[in-house]
Amino acid sequence: MVELPDKRAKFIDWYLEVVDRADLSDKRYGVKGMNVWTTYGMRARRNLDAVMVRAIEATGSEAVEFPALIPETDFAKEKEHIKGFDAQVYWVTKGGLSDLDVRLVLRPTSETAMYPTFALWVRSHKDLPLNVYQIVNTFRYETKTTRPFVRVREIHFFEEHTCQVDEAAATARVRSNLAAFRAMAEAFALPYVPIRRPEWDKFAGAHYSVAFDIPVGGARTLQIGSVHHYRQNFSVPYAIRYEAADGSQEYVHQTTFGLSERLLGAIVAVHGDAKGAVFPSAIAPFEVVIVPIPSADAPGAAERTASELADRLRAGGRRVHVDLSEDRPGAKYYRWELKGVPLRLELGKREAEARSASAVDRLGRRTRVSFDRLEAEVAERLVEFDRALTEKATAEFRASFSVARTLEELAGSERVRVVAWCGQEACGHRIETAIDGALLGTPEEELPLELPTIGACVGCGTSEGARWALAAQPL
Amino acid sequence: MVELPDKRAKFIDWYLEVVDRADLSDKRYGVKGMNVWTTYGMRARRNLDAVMVRAIEATGSEAVEFPALIPETDFAKEKEHIKGFDAQVYWVTKGGLSDLDVRLVLRPTSETAMYPTFALWVRSHKDLPLNVYQIVNTFRYETKTTRPFVRVREIHFFEEHTCQVDEAAATARVRSNLAAFRAMAEAFALPYVPIRRPEWDKFAGAHYSVAFDIPVGGARTLQIGSVHHYRQNFSVPYAIRYEAADGSQEYVHQTTFGLSERLLGAIVAVHGDAKGAVFPSAIAPFEVVIVPIPSADAPGAAERTASELADRLRAGGRRVHVDLSEDRPGAKYYRWELKGVPLRLELGKREAEARSASAVDRLGRRTRVSFDRLEAEVAERLVEFDRALTEKATAEFRASFSVARTLEELAGSERVRVVAWCGQEACGHRIETAIDGALLGTPEEELPLELPTIGACVGCGTSEGARWALAAQPL
Repeated sequence: MVELPDKRAKFIDWYLEVVDRADLSDKRYGVKGMNVWTTYGMRARRNLDAVMVRAIEATGSEAVEFPALIPETDFAKEKEHIKGFDAQVYWVTKGGLSDLDVRLVLRPTSETAMYPTFALWVRSHKDLPLNVYQIVNTFRYETKTTRPFVRVREIHFFEEHTCQVDEAAATARVRSNLAAFRAMAEAFALPYVPIRRPEWDKFAGAHYSVAFDIPVGGARTLQIGSVHHYRQNFSVPYAIRYEAADGSQEYVHQTTFGLSERLLGAIVAVHGDAKGAVFPSAIAPFEVVIVPIPSADAPGAAERTASELADRLRAGGRRVHVDLSEDRPGAKYYRWELKGVPLRLELGKREAEARSASAVDRLGRRTRVSFDRLEAEVAERLVEFDRALTEKATAEFRASFSVARTLEELAGSERVRVVAWCGQEACGHRIETAIDGALLGTPEEELPLELPTIGACVGCGTSEGARWALAAQPL
Repeated sequence: MVELPDKRAKFIDWYLEVVDRADLSDKRYGVKGMNVWTTYGMRARRNLDAVMVRAIEATGSEAVEFPALIPETDFAKEKEHIKGFDAQVYWVTKGGLSDLDVRLVLRPTSETAMYPTFALWVRSHKDLPLNVYQIVNTFRYETKTTRPFVRVREIHFFEEHTCQVDEAAATARVRSNLAAFRAMAEAFALPYVPIRRPEWDKFAGAHYSVAFDIPVGGARTLQIGSVHHYRQNFSVPYAIRYEAADGSQEYVHQTTFGLSERLLGAIVAVHGDAKGAVFPSAIAPFEVVIVPIPSADAPGAAERTASELADRLRAGGRRVHVDLSEDRPGAKYYRWELKGVPLRLELGKREAEARSASAVDRLGRRTRVSFDRLEAEVAERLVEFDRALTEKATAEFRASFSVARTLEELAGSERVRVVAWCGQEACGHRIETAIDGALLGTPEEELPLELPTIGACVGCGTSEGARWALAAQPL
């Protein structure tokens, strides 16, 4: 069994190997960047989707689904948006044996699919707010190097689209989305920073964008989601209007909230270690793996006990796998560590006699779990595992940032840089040149870091209005 | 409130109106035949998917997901298959601003997407059986008139694909799929006939096809699913081979099992009535609607009680809606009958005092449900409703067939025809000409009908080898 590449020194190699060896995704499909969801990857994705659905439906959002193909005529209505996506969409030009009269875009995102219908659904202020979401695949003709989950050409995508009565209500929806993501991220055990993107890096067509960034692999960052305030930028060209209580006709204000399979990539990237993937229990394809240790004295006994314990745990809704393969126990331990299962129960003759299994969590901590209190003790171990995983990730997160006082200090850093920025675009570009990366923007919430008193903008030296901003090389 | 068209006299008009007025699908999207899944339709679809997932996973099948785009080179490998689909696929020919080197097909079904990867996954007899399924959307450039759920261009689709060790194992998988569908159909309350399609009407590339047909709107039938035995028709061109226990290399035998959103259309078509849709409880977007009846004496009391009862039912996993809109109670009853909710609880001052709600099921039967035994009594009412719905559908199903003894008797029938057929293609075509429709094939299970002794083939008059077959005009 060949060791994984070193996570710190060769982050990308390590990441690709973990995804591959843990059998989370198969990238040998005939179109580069369009990968196959394996049975194991699908289990994780199903859990990821369940977390997103639970959190968004708690805010009153309801599921819909719009078609994957968008007529070119609808796609082209909002000028900034089309400019942003034109170079990276797939075009359907033929149906059967003939050319289509109107070419169709395979959705890269669904604004232009949804909004002509929103104009039919929204008539009166009583129809507002309209809060709907869909989980669908989107398509981008990606020209950069693709990576499983992180940058792919067919993307498993969550998108909420809302219509609000006015700008303030839309701002409130942005806040509600930020809170919903906070709740989701707890299940992912992922610390992150919500950052307001600079003007030149906002979503195509947005009034402003808040993105969620995490540090990965040293000085790199990964955007794992975003929330956008559109004001009336789309509602005017798409004519999404309502009759207000006073009888006047008003255009709605809109917001969107986007997440994707990239979250799975982030979970692998942040929690994984030298042994492979590590899943928080809410996302783990299996929360528990039971490994029976065969004994010559009592053939089949360990396997039977393992199956009984698994059935009890499954009856309580746990996702459990019993490894009945012919491999040695050591090979099984290795495999399920690689695949990131939070808790392993080992079950041999001794354990059966003592009526308690040996339990090892994916952070390597060994305890025992009694058969009599199985369900409760497994629940305790998983809660404790998630707690420790979050604590570890949070400590690493905090250690991933460092303050840069000058443009010179920005170059060649191994951390994500925190810099004072006056907010002007020219200074922003100076920062980007210095770090050879991106100015991510200004945090929407206080950074969970010990920061010195803020000084002058690193770009122009002006102290007035300088705020902390983050700069990094996005993955 | 304009009455619905008569279901018997104007079946298609009735169907389209019910789908529309019950707000199950919005067909005003910019591409004809690609419809929007509304929030209400999505709730039904989610329940439909859950029934399919539960039944198929009980047989050991696991979820996967393959890309939506298939390279032309992979698509063209099995000659019969490509002939069957060539005229009805969408082609992606451009990515961004340039033409693609290899054109991509938007999957019409996923044999050609999956099988190159199956060839990588299957190596040894230990890898078999491979039983995987996916729930994805498929695309067909439909040239006939489209109808919501029943014939659309983007189709919500369930497809299981399996690889088996030999022909007998594949035949056993077909049997297992037939049994799995029997279990699903119970939740749909849909009586159907599994029919082996004649040679000239089997799936493109199949060894044989078994389809599930139901009678709808008189002499018409609707195919609501199918199971196919492929033998080695795909495994040879796609090189899906394994090393047998004796060291020899063998090609796998394959099967598939396909279902779609058409099942929702079938549920509407079969159970619906003059008042609108009728959903069996497993599929119903809401199983229970509670209508509070306001009282001037105690403003808000009925609404509060309604919400309390709803919370209790939801805690037990029930899907419940409380109609707090400003409409009159009568308008609410009308709406939720139209939308097909199985059970309505009416809740006024009198009911609150008596601590029991008035309960009306969608078949119009009125009972009472006590607050104290709410959960149990609602469960009983729903079980009884499903039982009665199945009984009604079964009686109508049985009355939908009639025997035709001659070709002349086939013409102009208002029922699905049962005919004696010798199995020869020439006679099959004579039957199809006579009925101006299709010979559906021979039932795989005994028809649940009282049939006379079988006579001579209606096509050629030969008695030898004649079997009952069904003929109809497919919708």
